[in-house]
Amino acid sequence: MIRDGDTRVLQPIGTIRTAFSRKEDAPAQGALRPEGVGTIEVLPEYIDALDSVDTFSHLILLYALDRPESVQMRPVPLLGDSPTGLFATRHPARPNGIGLTVVSLLAREGATLTVGMVDMLDQTPLLDIKPYVPTFDAFPEASEGWFAGCRDRAATPGRA
Amino acid sequence: MIRDGDTRVLQPIGTIRTAFSRKEDAPAQGALRPEGVGTIEVLPEYIDALDSVDTFSHLILLYALDRPESVQMRPVPLLGDSPTGLFATRHPARPNGIGLTVVSLLAREGATLTVGMVDMLDQTPLLDIKPYVPTFDAFPEASEGWFAGCRDRAATPGRA
Repeated sequence: MIRDGDTRVLQPIGTIRTAFSRKEDAPAQGALRPEGVGTIEVLPEYIDALDSVDTFSHLILLYALDRPESVQMRPVPLLGDSPTGLFATRHPARPNGIGLTVVSLLAREGATLTVGMVDMLDQTPLLDIKPYVPTFDAFPEASEGWFAGCRDRAATPGRA
Repeated sequence: MIRDGDTRVLQPIGTIRTAFSRKEDAPAQGALRPEGVGTIEVLPEYIDALDSVDTFSHLILLYALDRPESVQMRPVPLLGDSPTGLFATRHPARPNGIGLTVVSLLAREGATLTVGMVDMLDQTPLLDIKPYVPTFDAFPEASEGWFAGCRDRAATPGRA
């Protein structure tokens, strides 16, 4: 991270490759279409940072939402029908444009990771990889909020 | 998000207030000391983006790790004993310096959120708030990787 006064500058650590070149092709959330497989190409200078990554079954990816629409405070979410506060949605047009997806780790070969549950567009810049640790990250009892029932919409053509 | 060629510039959307002014006082992960309560002060221009946030019991906070040490590819993790690949750890000194914590939402009053399970240092710049949705984010069956057993270290003085 490069600091410049009160702003922070990001630089990709790698690239995410998926079969989704258009927003219409990608699922709204990877978990809704778990068979979606993609590839993470980490830059060679970070290969030592990948040691032990393959002891985890799931990873948290942070990435740049680099094909933004303009930010609206109350967008209509992909999985909803009515305007909703942006911070109560996972809508991709958001301040700072950082996306988050929990993926399953299927294989590692050198600096290349094969992952499942992807929802990112092809060529998305990768910003961070964190291990998904159930003790810190899994709260199955949490409220689904307004998303309750959105699994039923997963079969909608275009947006899984 | 402001784009500048291949780099991206971040600007805080608010400030996280906690009782932890020094790294030695903060838990390594908020879930290890769930009684830790903090306050999120969102900037007034984002108040409409908070609509419906209080329909969720848990939120994902992304924030700037703004008091960095130098990045090492294989640091010794807070909860471990031996050097481990950075992307297999939640160590705070990492490229792009973005921290992630799942917090419980205890109350909202205007642009101020009271949250539990905090592990951030006081005055940490907030970058994003996302709703925690179990369908997308809770994988209790995921592997704990090398973190397995780290709950037993939670009572270590200094670093919960």
